[in-house]
This record gives sequence, structure tokens and C-alpha cells, in this order.
Amino acid sequence: MSDERVEQAVRVGLGERGYDVVVGDGILGGIGGAAREVGLRGRCALISDERVAGLYGDEVEGSLRAAGYEVVRVEVPEGEASKSLGQVEACCGAMARGGLDRGSFVLALGGGVVGDLAGLVAAVYYRGVPYVQVPTTVVAQVDSSVGGKTGVNLGEGKNLVGAFHQPRLVWADVATLATLGEREYREGFAEVIKHAAIRDAAMLDGLGARVAERGGAGMVELMARNVAIKARVVEEDERETAGVRALLNFGHTAGHGIEAAGGYGRFLHGEAISLGLVVAVRLSVQVAGLAEGEAARVLGALEEFGLPMVLPEDVEIAAVLEAMGRDKKFEGGQVRFVLLRALGDAFVSEDVTVEMVGEVLSP
Amino acid sequence: MSDERVEQAVRVGLGERGYDVVVGDGILGGIGGAAREVGLRGRCALISDERVAGLYGDEVEGSLRAAGYEVVRVEVPEGEASKSLGQVEACCGAMARGGLDRGSFVLALGGGVVGDLAGLVAAVYYRGVPYVQVPTTVVAQVDSSVGGKTGVNLGEGKNLVGAFHQPRLVWADVATLATLGEREYREGFAEVIKHAAIRDAAMLDGLGARVAERGGAGMVELMARNVAIKARVVEEDERETAGVRALLNFGHTAGHGIEAAGGYGRFLHGEAISLGLVVAVRLSVQVAGLAEGEAARVLGALEEFGLPMVLPEDVEIAAVLEAMGRDKKFEGGQVRFVLLRALGDAFVSEDVTVEMVGEVLSP
Repeated sequence: MSDERVEQAVRVGLGERGYDVVVGDGILGGIGGAAREVGLRGRCALISDERVAGLYGDEVEGSLRAAGYEVVRVEVPEGEASKSLGQVEACCGAMARGGLDRGSFVLALGGGVVGDLAGLVAAVYYRGVPYVQVPTTVVAQVDSSVGGKTGVNLGEGKNLVGAFHQPRLVWADVATLATLGEREYREGFAEVIKHAAIRDAAMLDGLGARVAERGGAGMVELMARNVAIKARVVEEDERETAGVRALLNFGHTAGHGIEAAGGYGRFLHGEAISLGLVVAVRLSVQVAGLAEGEAARVLGALEEFGLPMVLPEDVEIAAVLEAMGRDKKFEGGQVRFVLLRALGDAFVSEDVTVEMVGEVLSP
Repeated sequence: MSDERVEQAVRVGLGERGYDVVVGDGILGGIGGAAREVGLRGRCALISDERVAGLYGDEVEGSLRAAGYEVVRVEVPEGEASKSLGQVEACCGAMARGGLDRGSFVLALGGGVVGDLAGLVAAVYYRGVPYVQVPTTVVAQVDSSVGGKTGVNLGEGKNLVGAFHQPRLVWADVATLATLGEREYREGFAEVIKHAAIRDAAMLDGLGARVAERGGAGMVELMARNVAIKARVVEEDERETAGVRALLNFGHTAGHGIEAAGGYGRFLHGEAISLGLVVAVRLSVQVAGLAEGEAARVLGALEEFGLPMVLPEDVEIAAVLEAMGRDKKFEGGQVRFVLLRALGDAFVSEDVTVEMVGEVLSP
């Protein structure tokens, strides 16, 4: 259909920190002009991981240079281990050697790891420079590139060090999803299913069709729909102080514990979140009155994407619970767990104990 | 005199980020109550260096505990080398192991190094927690504890990584200056003399008396007077975007270059700034019309405090100039140098070249 929209812009309305999330199909080469349009000046640090840099680095650099920017390329190893203060130091050092000063900006090209890392680099380099997110995974396009949460991990836990630093622009090209491995593609839908569960149950209808069909206008539509959900939550509660943004942690309390217990790298983030969603849905049925039929819709969607739903036997439940205890979402020592009373009706419960999580995880 | 004021509060007026700087003589034991009064809650990470912790750690911890706070002590090695991302990681890790969550706060007890480091730790731990500055050196009391600039060094340059993060309270006890070594005490006056040069020349009158007399109401008065100068500048230009805050860099462009060229540790910060002030004053005479008599007042004050005024022969001028080229104050590759047309009339000049700095530094 010639009238299909191949580009959609979702505004994140945060006053002077507001910005557009542009989702399109085949828009990658337009990033240089788009950066000019939002007023970015100075040199650009193009931060990416080795895989994504090899696929899209030249096209992005070329677009930036065509728009008149000098570009300093910075590459980090692929994978969660790059979310470290050591990599923050390496990136900032490379930028300093490349002559980037406080009038420069950062462009994060890649998935959630690169976005979280480069966002923190931008937050602290010269005490803060602007940055652009160019997300190339499903998770990054629907979730992590939007909302300004940046961070790296410590040995003691995930995202313990970071900053709230909103990007100046998010530029999401669904065509980049074509080069994701099957597992990397599917894991992203854990966050899509989470969004559906807490805010937009109708999005679950026909979602499974996206397993085979990665690009096109339907994908642009789906990504933009997810971005809009995230944007509205961020607008209500930018710094996660009002409790609304905490609802986005549905599935994440157990999910992060599972991710940590597996050792980062064992599970992809979305796979751990899938397991966390199973826990959260089951606890919602047990203590919050979620109907079995609604629970089944969420679990069925996870199944359609072939996401893990049972904790592998070699991951110790005790290790999961111990890691959960160190998680940021345990406020003042108290467990804060997001549950559903019904699809679309999420809330923060203080009725969930670590023991209850352990029971749900037990075979 | 019984009517001497032994405590003065200077407000830093930044709206919802505003706070008091309380300067007093013998007020250290009141910090716990003061933290309660400004609404701080949760556990406290008391970050200090080994020397200061040994002198004042127990008193501060006791005061905090008496006010009902749980305290986790974190100690870093003394000296500029602790301003590193490695120490940020060590501090955050210790805090996580100590059970501090996003409802906690940081207290920085020490000089500029501890304040800059702990301030950045507070800025990034759990994406930002509140903090209190308890400065125990002259530099920290008159300058670095006020204004929210936090940061650490990279091999590539000083303060290249940091954040603007305003403290919730600054609690400055001049009695803590009694335990400073002679050199550490005197270096602090480089910043006092800088403040006098750019904003309050009358402060130079009788300043030399402070060499021998460290505490008392006169010292409280002097520290508060300096804090007020800094506070007014910060209020005008919190994030150094309007150019006003840049005036505080008087003496610092060459000073930071000298500090880097000497290898951090060769010069105390204030000693390097003294050398930088000499450069800035001489260039002010050469290109900005500063009267020789006014220049002599500034140089005379540095001399009264026995601060270095001639670059030691073994520090290479070329290394100073090279380090200056990487300094944050070189905007877009252009040298930006703060000069004086007259005492109290500072401005940012773009007429100073690296070569001119080299000539002034030459014997």
C-alpha cells in the first residue's frame, strides 16, 4: 500500500528536556541531517559495539560527515560485560584523545548495552554533553533508548551506577532488526509483552505474526506504539519518584535476580525478563486476583516467541533470591513487587516476600 | 568578644536545589542534627580519606548515630589519585555491600579530593542520591564544596568525568583546619586570593594575618565571605553556560596545565593555582590593561602565604602547554582565558594564545 506510513514520530514531552523518538523503516542514513535539525553541534563520538559498528557504523558515520560533523569512532566489546565503569573510562579517554570537548555530543549506535553505557558516558563526560540514541535491537527501540535511564553494572548488582540523562533525539530504524540473530530478535518481545500487560492488552492480538515478519510498516507501527506507552509513563514520572515509572519494572524484580544468578551472559536480558514475567504473572494470580484467562494471554504470548518460561535446573533459586535482595527495587530493605490486578491495572505491592518468589520458581 | 558570631549561614539560592552553607567554629558534632533538619533520611555513607577519617571520622559518625542514622564508613587513600573512576566503583561497591539503597545519602568528610569524588558517587549511585559536604580544608571550605561541581580525573586530563550535583547541605567547621599541615593550610589561600582578585579586592587587606591565626571568629568571617562570593556566581550560572561561572577559572587554565605537567601529586592544587594566578595576572597586565599596582597586590598576597610563584625548572613548559590543550576550558579548540582589566573586573578573553602562556612561564 502506497499510503502506509514508513516513519512515525513520538514526542516525549518533558519541557525543555523533551525530544522526539522517530521510528521508521530504512531511515538510518538520515541521522546526520536529523542531528542538525535538533541543533547538535561540535564533534560526534560514535559509540557502538564491534558487531553493530561492522554492520552500520560506516553508514551512520557517512551520514554524520555528510551533515558536516567530525566523527570519533569508539567501539566496545559486544555484550553485557561492557556495561562497566571501566568501559565508561575507556570511552571518555578515547573521546578526550579524539579532541572532543564540552561542545561535542555522543551518538549511541546499538542495543541496550551500548545505549545504557553511552548514555552514562554522555551524562558524565565534561559533566554532561548531549546525546542521540540510535537503537538497533527490539529491546532498545521499545524500551531502553527512551526515557533517559542510563547506567552500568557493578559486581554487586545491575544498573547500580548511572544517571537520568535524556537524549536529544532517538532515531529507531526497524530495518536494523533484520541483522539480529533469532534469539536476539525474540528476546526483545519480552518488553513488548510487558508493555501490553501493564498498559495495552489489545497489543497482544496478532503479536505472534511478528515472529516471522521483522520489518515493514507493521513493525514501525508496533515499535511506535510501544514507544508511546513508555513515553507517557516517563512523562508522568521522569525520575521514578511518583511510583508510576516503577510499574515498568513489571517482571523485572525477579528478572534481574535471574539475570544476575545466571551470571550476565547466561540469559539475554529479555530472556531473564521472560522468566521474571512468568513469576510476576503467577504471583499476580495468587495474591492480586489476576484472572487465570488473562494470565494465560500473557504467558501464551511469551510462548509464541519461544521465550524461556521455566528456570533451568542449574540456576540456583537461592542465588536468584540473594541477587534480588541487592536489587535497586528493594526500597529501604522492603520488597516492592509490581503485580497486576488485571491486564492494564498494575500496582506496586508490598505483600510479596522473597519466600513467595522462591516457591513460584520451584519446579 | 562575647558578641562575636561563631556560626554563619550562607544560602545558595538555586530554587528547589538551593541549600545552606553553614560555617562555624567547633560545629562538627552538630552535623547529625543538621542532616535531620534538612530532611535527610535512610542510611548514610560516610566517605572520607584515611587521614581525615582518623581525625574526625568518629566524631562525625557519632553525631550521625546520635541523630538516628545508620552509618557505613568508606575510606579512600589520601591524595589526588583517589579522584578516579576506580574509586567511584570502589565506593559504590562498598555502599551496595553495606545495604545502602536509593533512599540513602552520602556525606563527604574531607578536602577537595574527597568532596569531588564523593559528590560524583552521590550523583551516580542509584542514578543519584542526596549528599552533604563537610569540608575540612581551606580549598574545600571556600570553593570546592560549594556549587555542585563533582568529578574525577582521567589520564587524559583533570575533571574530565563528573556531574553537576548540588549538595543538600554544606557544613564547614574552621576548627578542622587546625590539623592541616602547613603546606596544606597555605595552599588553600590561592583560591581566596583568586576570589579577591575577581570579586572582592578589599579582602586582600590584612589577609596575611591568617597565616598564623587559623581558627576563631575572624576565620569564620573570612570563609563565609568567600562562600558568599562563590554562591553568588553559582546562582548566576549554575552549569557554567552563561560565562559568569567561567570567571572562577581565573588562574586555573595555566594552573591545571601545571598541575598535570607536574604529575598530580607534585604540586598541591592550590600551589599549581598560585603559579596559574601568576601567569593570569601577568597576561592581564600585558593584554588587558591591568595596572601594575593592582597586579602587585595579588602577587604580594601569594607571597605572604609563601605560595610558589616561579615554575620549577624541572617542570617542562612544553608539557604544561600540551596539558592545557586538553583542558576543558579550551572550547571548540579555542583558548579561553580569564583575565582582569582591573581587580574585580574579570572577563573571558580569546586573545591569549598558547605561545603567550609559554613566554610568561619562561624564566
